[in-house]
Amino acid sequence: MSTNNAPPAGTRDFLPEDVRRREHVMTRIKAAYERHGFAPLETPSMERVETLSGKYGDEGEQLVFRIQKRGEKLTEELQRSPVDPKQLADLALRYDLTVPLARVVAQYQGKLPKFFKRYQMQPVWRADRPQKGRFREFWQCDVDYVGTTSLVAEMEVMQAVGDALASLSFDRFHLRVNDRRLLTGIMEAAGIRKEMHDLAIIGVDKLDKIGPEGVRKELVERGITGSQIEVLAPILFACEGGVAGNAARLDAVAEAVEGRSATGTAGLATLRELLGLLDSVGGLAGRLLFDPSLARGLSYYTGPIFELAVEGLAGSMGGGGRYDELVGMFLGRPIPAVGFSLGLERILVVMEERGMLPALDVASDVMVLQMDRKLLAHAAELADRLRRAGFRTEVFPEATAKLGAQFQYADTRRIPVVAFIGDRELESGMVAIKSLASGQQELVPLAGATAHVARLLGRTPA
Amino acid sequence: MSTNNAPPAGTRDFLPEDVRRREHVMTRIKAAYERHGFAPLETPSMERVETLSGKYGDEGEQLVFRIQKRGEKLTEELQRSPVDPKQLADLALRYDLTVPLARVVAQYQGKLPKFFKRYQMQPVWRADRPQKGRFREFWQCDVDYVGTTSLVAEMEVMQAVGDALASLSFDRFHLRVNDRRLLTGIMEAAGIRKEMHDLAIIGVDKLDKIGPEGVRKELVERGITGSQIEVLAPILFACEGGVAGNAARLDAVAEAVEGRSATGTAGLATLRELLGLLDSVGGLAGRLLFDPSLARGLSYYTGPIFELAVEGLAGSMGGGGRYDELVGMFLGRPIPAVGFSLGLERILVVMEERGMLPALDVASDVMVLQMDRKLLAHAAELADRLRRAGFRTEVFPEATAKLGAQFQYADTRRIPVVAFIGDRELESGMVAIKSLASGQQELVPLAGATAHVARLLGRTPA
Repeated sequence: MSTNNAPPAGTRDFLPEDVRRREHVMTRIKAAYERHGFAPLETPSMERVETLSGKYGDEGEQLVFRIQKRGEKLTEELQRSPVDPKQLADLALRYDLTVPLARVVAQYQGKLPKFFKRYQMQPVWRADRPQKGRFREFWQCDVDYVGTTSLVAEMEVMQAVGDALASLSFDRFHLRVNDRRLLTGIMEAAGIRKEMHDLAIIGVDKLDKIGPEGVRKELVERGITGSQIEVLAPILFACEGGVAGNAARLDAVAEAVEGRSATGTAGLATLRELLGLLDSVGGLAGRLLFDPSLARGLSYYTGPIFELAVEGLAGSMGGGGRYDELVGMFLGRPIPAVGFSLGLERILVVMEERGMLPALDVASDVMVLQMDRKLLAHAAELADRLRRAGFRTEVFPEATAKLGAQFQYADTRRIPVVAFIGDRELESGMVAIKSLASGQQELVPLAGATAHVARLLGRTPA
Repeated sequence: MSTNNAPPAGTRDFLPEDVRRREHVMTRIKAAYERHGFAPLETPSMERVETLSGKYGDEGEQLVFRIQKRGEKLTEELQRSPVDPKQLADLALRYDLTVPLARVVAQYQGKLPKFFKRYQMQPVWRADRPQKGRFREFWQCDVDYVGTTSLVAEMEVMQAVGDALASLSFDRFHLRVNDRRLLTGIMEAAGIRKEMHDLAIIGVDKLDKIGPEGVRKELVERGITGSQIEVLAPILFACEGGVAGNAARLDAVAEAVEGRSATGTAGLATLRELLGLLDSVGGLAGRLLFDPSLARGLSYYTGPIFELAVEGLAGSMGGGGRYDELVGMFLGRPIPAVGFSLGLERILVVMEERGMLPALDVASDVMVLQMDRKLLAHAAELADRLRRAGFRTEVFPEATAKLGAQFQYADTRRIPVVAFIGDRELESGMVAIKSLASGQQELVPLAGATAHVARLLGRTPA
């Protein structure tokens, strides 16, 4: 047969070892989110086309996977002339976790708590051109705090993310922090016209790639004058001095905006308070980097913005910020919210490259060999006994296989302990138990089998 | 705004309480599967249309959700005249977990162990008409043993399912068991022509609904003679005598097939051995009901078949059997396999109706109140301390809310413990901690806060 048996382009099969690795990471992120009082939400894989349309810009819209109408409804659409491609689909695959959150907030208003703290870790689908590390089906680990303008929202979202990273044993990471209002404020202070702000921000956003001189040139090309650029200077010299330079950078920015932009001054006050708070408490102390050039492309942010930077890694593993205008989209009124999205795939790639994943038990703990078909009931009983003690146990299926082949199979599968009951063992009420690591085999009374296996595995029986 | 904010028909949003209930059940099923040496597999939500087509019969084919081609490829198809609806989609949503398993077995032949024991718990999608308890997105919890004709496969699959049910506290359940070869054998013994077997089986399959007399009538209408029906008698009087009647029913069937059908005799031998084995071992002893009328519609079964019957519940919560011809579909050669599929939704409905779900902690363990904005750092520090001890903790976000309102919010959310540091507490290095269950409030030194909270929650701090 010449069928193509690979998963569709941009998607992956997760074999047992892959699933374990992913679960290891997701379990820890989940636990960190929960420690900060966030609760799980799950939404359907598909949404109505109307729910998603107009939400992701022209470029995003192209990447939405649409699900074809079925039966008569499809036939009807195909009979029209010309056929309207937009009418052929009624459903679409989830493209992100934010629009579904907004829908849920609108749908269950009375049922959700006033401050809705939710996390959501589910796949999203985008018809991007697949390439190394970029998939068409990938997982987002979002945490959002909906319903308050209080800085506690920023604080707990950031702490939750910091806790997640720390619990995965990341030690050298920072949260780059800025405030959209500060960017606006500096533009205002420089006398740059409002229509030009986005263009200028796009220029500044390239700082990482083209450096301050490159940005200066770009800005001049965009019609920004030399004296305006002088006012922008604090956001062009980004993060000199690292975390220790936070105070100096705040002062430089303060000088630029205070008395010249109320928006900028408000943003600055928020940032000072947020940095002060998080520097005095637990996990994020010393991990916050005030980066006045941080812009985060998406225009929907309205306050503080964050980006996760891991030392030695180009690009970020996630980001977020305050976006007070978006979650209320289906209600037609603003609902304040702060969110952060971690990319599972990126985290996994980094952890694998850096050897940060612990050895994960993939195989069973014990394999019970089959000496003889007529002894199968005894093998099954032994397996049952071991399972009741909490050990993952399997019986080798084929009595016809030689004992050596059975041992070898267990070894290839990296099953650490092998046990069996042959005629001799049966007569004496014993079990033969062998550690494949040490190669040592012992005869143990049936009643002591679980305790012996526990010792070999270095565990306590359940 | 008049948008429809409900999830698409046949799909559901899972709010935090729903997620916890589902996780409770899935975690236990997963653990049971793992205790029996099954390992997790996950496959993409979408498969190529070719992979799924021709696999589910005409009726199933109608229910597959197809994903529209994108960009130029779609435009091209729409320019053809007439438009071929089959060419508009390139991908389709997973319809079951068996075809993806077959694809995986074909794709990773060298990588998978010789005996591939996998479980898979993922959603599948079917464009069925939504109705009470029937969804378009629903979860299957499949366990399959691939690669051996040994009865150990049946044994471990059934034991895993029994263990899953028991660990969910189901106590009154049975596995109805039969063997497809036994049905064939009885047809052969009755002299019913091979072409008629399926028709006759469809008749017998209605035994539950129309009773033995109804089935007799149906069979006569299908051209089966009175004397043939006499031979079929053992499969028409199903389960009289329950589990205790297994032996009598086996004897009755033996009398019908032995010497008349080799296929039937082989099926009978397998069944006797399987029942004997499982009756002598642990969890399934006394739970196996030999039901010679059990047919399980799907014609792909080749040996023993099982169905899960829960007392007081019409229909089944899952089923399976041996299907040696299916998993090799993409390899073009038979690969023996035994599988069982549990329906998550059905299990949840029953457990909810019967009050079998334990009280699940939905909310945080502790809420730290905000007395005053200037004390927020102290509130945050207390929260941090509690989180490090493993308690799910949140800080009430708005310092402007009155303390009474904050208490009430915690109460409404069913957060059991509330803690705060006001000016007085701060001065004396104390924390006020209140149990909302008992209403008792105490002043505790900051260093003793986690121990006190642990006592109130009846837990050990991490």
